[in-house]
Amino acid sequence: MSIRGGLVDVMGQTLTEKILSDHLVEGELEPGEEIGIEIDQVLTQDTTGTLVWLQFEALDLDEVQTELAAQYCDHQTYQFDFKNTDDHRFLRSAAGKFGAHFSRPGNGICHNVHKENFAAPGKTMLGSDSHTPTPGGLGELAIGAGGLDVSVAMGGGAYYIDMPEIVNVRLEGELPEWATAKDVILELLRRLSVKGGVGKVLEYTGPGVETLSVPERTTITNMGTELGATTSIFPTDEKTEDYLERLGRGEDYEEIGPDTDAEYHDEIVVDLSELEPLIAEPSMPDNIVPVREAAGQDVEQVMIGSCTNGGYEDILPAAKMLEGREVNKTTEMIVAPGSKQASEMLARDGWASELMAAGVNFSESTCGACIGIGHVPASDSVSLRTFNRNFEGRSGLEDDNVYLCSPEVAAAAAIKGEIVDPRDLAEELGDMEAPGFELPDVYDGSKADLIPPEEAVDDELVKGPNIGDVPLKDELDAHLEGPALLKMDDNITTDHIIPATQDILMYRSNIPKLSEFTLSRVDETFADRALESDGGFLVAGENYGQGSSREHAALCPMYLGVEGVLAQSFARIHKANLFNFGLLPLEINEDTYEKIDQGDDIEIVDDVAEAVRSGQEEFTIRVNDDWEATGYLDASEREREILADGGKLSHTKKQYEQEGNAPADD
Amino acid sequence: MSIRGGLVDVMGQTLTEKILSDHLVEGELEPGEEIGIEIDQVLTQDTTGTLVWLQFEALDLDEVQTELAAQYCDHQTYQFDFKNTDDHRFLRSAAGKFGAHFSRPGNGICHNVHKENFAAPGKTMLGSDSHTPTPGGLGELAIGAGGLDVSVAMGGGAYYIDMPEIVNVRLEGELPEWATAKDVILELLRRLSVKGGVGKVLEYTGPGVETLSVPERTTITNMGTELGATTSIFPTDEKTEDYLERLGRGEDYEEIGPDTDAEYHDEIVVDLSELEPLIAEPSMPDNIVPVREAAGQDVEQVMIGSCTNGGYEDILPAAKMLEGREVNKTTEMIVAPGSKQASEMLARDGWASELMAAGVNFSESTCGACIGIGHVPASDSVSLRTFNRNFEGRSGLEDDNVYLCSPEVAAAAAIKGEIVDPRDLAEELGDMEAPGFELPDVYDGSKADLIPPEEAVDDELVKGPNIGDVPLKDELDAHLEGPALLKMDDNITTDHIIPATQDILMYRSNIPKLSEFTLSRVDETFADRALESDGGFLVAGENYGQGSSREHAALCPMYLGVEGVLAQSFARIHKANLFNFGLLPLEINEDTYEKIDQGDDIEIVDDVAEAVRSGQEEFTIRVNDDWEATGYLDASEREREILADGGKLSHTKKQYEQEGNAPADD
Repeated sequence: MSIRGGLVDVMGQTLTEKILSDHLVEGELEPGEEIGIEIDQVLTQDTTGTLVWLQFEALDLDEVQTELAAQYCDHQTYQFDFKNTDDHRFLRSAAGKFGAHFSRPGNGICHNVHKENFAAPGKTMLGSDSHTPTPGGLGELAIGAGGLDVSVAMGGGAYYIDMPEIVNVRLEGELPEWATAKDVILELLRRLSVKGGVGKVLEYTGPGVETLSVPERTTITNMGTELGATTSIFPTDEKTEDYLERLGRGEDYEEIGPDTDAEYHDEIVVDLSELEPLIAEPSMPDNIVPVREAAGQDVEQVMIGSCTNGGYEDILPAAKMLEGREVNKTTEMIVAPGSKQASEMLARDGWASELMAAGVNFSESTCGACIGIGHVPASDSVSLRTFNRNFEGRSGLEDDNVYLCSPEVAAAAAIKGEIVDPRDLAEELGDMEAPGFELPDVYDGSKADLIPPEEAVDDELVKGPNIGDVPLKDELDAHLEGPALLKMDDNITTDHIIPATQDILMYRSNIPKLSEFTLSRVDETFADRALESDGGFLVAGENYGQGSSREHAALCPMYLGVEGVLAQSFARIHKANLFNFGLLPLEINEDTYEKIDQGDDIEIVDDVAEAVRSGQEEFTIRVNDDWEATGYLDASEREREILADGGKLSHTKKQYEQEGNAPADD
Repeated sequence: MSIRGGLVDVMGQTLTEKILSDHLVEGELEPGEEIGIEIDQVLTQDTTGTLVWLQFEALDLDEVQTELAAQYCDHQTYQFDFKNTDDHRFLRSAAGKFGAHFSRPGNGICHNVHKENFAAPGKTMLGSDSHTPTPGGLGELAIGAGGLDVSVAMGGGAYYIDMPEIVNVRLEGELPEWATAKDVILELLRRLSVKGGVGKVLEYTGPGVETLSVPERTTITNMGTELGATTSIFPTDEKTEDYLERLGRGEDYEEIGPDTDAEYHDEIVVDLSELEPLIAEPSMPDNIVPVREAAGQDVEQVMIGSCTNGGYEDILPAAKMLEGREVNKTTEMIVAPGSKQASEMLARDGWASELMAAGVNFSESTCGACIGIGHVPASDSVSLRTFNRNFEGRSGLEDDNVYLCSPEVAAAAAIKGEIVDPRDLAEELGDMEAPGFELPDVYDGSKADLIPPEEAVDDELVKGPNIGDVPLKDELDAHLEGPALLKMDDNITTDHIIPATQDILMYRSNIPKLSEFTLSRVDETFADRALESDGGFLVAGENYGQGSSREHAALCPMYLGVEGVLAQSFARIHKANLFNFGLLPLEINEDTYEKIDQGDDIEIVDDVAEAVRSGQEEFTIRVNDDWEATGYLDASEREREILADGGKLSHTKKQYEQEGNAPADD
């Protein structure tokens, strides 16, 4: 029932609306209304991909139905445990069996490799990684989702989402020397905070756009995730075409942009010419100050890499700054390129050896340290990173001090051994030019590590001993009652719920084991208490579940018997994951939040299953058999059915049983 | 009391005897007799170095007394936990405070970096790593030892060892195409087994020597450790001088070699021209077959690197073989250069990009995977490695299948996806030349990661929360009695006693925590049982404690209260470590070994402390108050004093208290 191509002449549309119209299979493009869209491309990585494919297998489908699916191995490339290596082998076999591209461990970060090989204007993409919006810099509408949504999309099913508001981010002027694309997104984080983009698509327009190359644009769209945005997108232009031609993919170019009379829900103006080097102080990406305000702080570690600033073009400025110089002896500097193509080109052009000569530890192409896997900072030390998140503990050290900045600011700190504005360092040194931002003439890296479906080497799934079954939940009960197992503050991240560090995430395909670590960062006794309790609820403040798309943050509480979450507000992807795994997400107001204590007995005084299915929005929460409050369920009809059926997998399976057909249009 | 230089005209000496004479401070060069020698150079790495420096600190010395000391960070460069990074920071501070060179994490493997920067003919070296003999390829007499011996040597104390037998390994002929230095040492392992070198120095002579470059010689001396040899050494010649000149250290050259009438205790002849590509099958380095006998075995992982075959010259042949070709899609290939100089030169010369283009994951310069840290094989898979050890589980996977081979055999397997003799692959492909073995014109890598003492950036020790105190043991009791806590087979390795995997070794400076893993590979209940028991003994077969030099293999049993080890025979370094940590090592015969069961009550029917001090060699072991056997203590007067005092640290401290002076001559 695709109506793709049927709405091309609608007037006054934003770019986002154009692409959505082009892919709409259900609903209308009214903010807040649920829409279903057809997905062209799908992306998964190694920490979320195992479950994606196990779920795809559970759906009894033979082959990927999207135009393109790509499985990357990027988070666990250091392979610290056989479970990582087993996962990679399983993922290769799944990509081969079901018809996806497979990117071998060491070939780079999904977003970088996808950008280089597959991202294309006008396409829709769903990815089981929160930085999926990266290709928005090329005019692709790319959205991060839970792995289960990705599995269903790979099966040809639509992706359902509340129609976001479209915000016009109007760029004016041109970046001055030493200010970078990273400073654009840090400036937006400074203004909007990590909640500022929730329920919104940020659409970049204005004369400043053409001053930015595609890799600069993708730095901005990538880190739009830290604003909580559904996605971010740029129009395409000559720069886009030129970039695709340098990649050898000129044929993928399509000129797309908003109508001149497009209407936006809001507008933000950023004058690029007024930007200066910025830095996010510990431990939140919106904790932004000018670098000069943080100057003088000793820095023990500097890292360049990640999907935000790990490209050839991102590392080049740092390499130029370090050419003929040395990393300070008190500071360790590690460069982990975002893709092997970047590594290979930096090596071929002589920049890798320059970096090594300067004292840089040049590592594999990996997400690695960005999620606490490798190069964990020393205790009580400062790490400066070009990454996108500095949530406390994400580096693998509990009480870390991680700053986020541009490669230029990172390189300056590595030279000086302390935080310094690169403009001040340049003045101090006298002979350091602003490196500028430069694209290679041609991206000529090898494709040896990217195995297309037609060259697949596996036709059966290869499952190691740590790859288990997908747990299923029964239909929602009529009666929900249990203790408030844990009361949490605002802004609980998915890293709090399930830490992404190597020692924990190696169990990502082994849910019983993984669940032992649920919310251990908040309360080490939680998992045991939840398992012992016969059901129960989580209680949280604002923005519960912000951060990554990892569905384990819903799956593990489900496995432990948690029945619902009472929070003042939910992060978008995590809320979708709660529906998908059959957990009731009820919004409560601040008074109710304040009044509930951990350990209180919570009862939902309704026939919950019936109320969920019937569209009831207000639920009566009875606490300690003593007082009552209201919880609000904001859910579409479809989400209600999924929730009541015990989650999306149970729901989809049930549909099979009832209809005997594939869930292509859900 | 050095008598260095006093014995230069002794006739008929081997090279080993010449160097020992030159450094002798106690004893005579009669095999089996204990000698004390002066140490010129000291080497430590990051898994043994923390304890070396904590012990050095405990000795209350101000400054390193040897000509040169160098602290490398090579095992844990992935810094998977803040404890690793804290260790590196502590080691930098210790090197700075006490006057050692510091090699930063990522700068490479100790043996490679030491070879490139410091190894010199005629010097003696002690290193807290079992592959310390590597510089033997340049005529340096280098011996692996426990960290405590290294601490004492750094304090200017002599190193004591039983004078080994000197074996002449006479090389004849020249290596044919596709046979390599690795095949020379694999051939020796095939002939002699992992016990064949115990108590011996292998001295290479004959016309074949001059056909081998220094890096080829160091591959052979490096892996002499797997023969159990005390060390291995080559004479110097024009090739040595040439190599040192390419390193920019021509002034370190000295022509040294055995006298023409030198007498050896044994001779082994290897005709290089008869060698062919060999491979060590799982899971022991002496399990050697011709590659053709193992051909056809699927290979999931290929790794090139390590101190044995991680040099620029080792990686170059593989790069040439892979130029214009691709790694098989079923196989993952990782290259981890042995030094950053090698990485930098491979990058500058274009070989790093060629390797990446072929599908190689080019990683940091690290020991890494060789000790199970990173790139752990998938379950039930085969890994081919150019490393030196394939002890079961060492890769980080319990039931692994690791093969050891030359870089040429590794590259051939990566291309073919299965084990193949490179001669057969060359014939099959038709256009693959034998790459040969080539030295760069000049080793021109940067020294940015090597901080000399005069440029140290720390003057105080920086201790993270995981760096604890050194445990001390009281004087030996008169009465030793306790259960046989664990009965083990032959060839128990130090990896069995304390696994070197990352999840365990991160506690290397936290003895109470580390001890929980003692012998867990043999019996998971051991550590708890040992702690609960009030003392007790270990019982083992032949060659107990083979493998690495890690002193934790003695320190942790000591911490758990183990009082002694009854074994049919002991590996040399481990036995020294048992003395150094105050554990009684008694040799028992096969009958006694067979008769003792785990759990039996063991009593040493002597005044043990008095007997040890008085030189008593036979001890009566009373078992279950029922039968008796004899245990033999083979120990020098010095070792007896150390043992009776409760270990070397207690002994050295006691000497201070009695004499009030430094333990320079012990």
